[in-house]
Amino acid sequence: MKARVTITLKNGVLDPQGQAIEGALASLGFSGVDSVRQGKVFHIELAETDPGSARENVENMCEKLLANTVIEDYTVEIIN
Amino acid sequence: MKARVTITLKNGVLDPQGQAIEGALASLGFSGVDSVRQGKVFHIELAETDPGSARENVENMCEKLLANTVIEDYTVEIIN
Repeated sequence: MKARVTITLKNGVLDPQGQAIEGALASLGFSGVDSVRQGKVFHIELAETDPGSARENVENMCEKLLANTVIEDYTVEIIN
Repeated sequence: MKARVTITLKNGVLDPQGQAIEGALASLGFSGVDSVRQGKVFHIELAETDPGSARENVENMCEKLLANTVIEDYTVEIIN
């Protein structure tokens, strides 16, 4: 069973990397870019075969290691 | 219009960061993790209102700046 975890900065948290990319896109001639926010994605392969407990397990991983929940949000998608 | 760009290492490209996370998960007591691969995600807000040209525009951004297409794959999702 596969899980995709997406970790993004919470709204309101400054994202200097995203702003740098926004500036670089503008200087390359891409117009009409209103904002860029950067985050992380993890593709995790699990031995677990039950979607419910796979999700619970991955959410625990996010809380304990993958995300800094003070400034980051996470979403877990279970892909069969 | 919003776009979500996901950038991951191509299969076969070594991912030391993913391996480090896999090791850290194991040492935290999470068993049954077969592999972890890390990637990047960009949330881009565009002024463009046509989904087709928004996608084309974002794919160009990936080719020119966001992804290193020698070692990375990218996927573009257009979210209304």
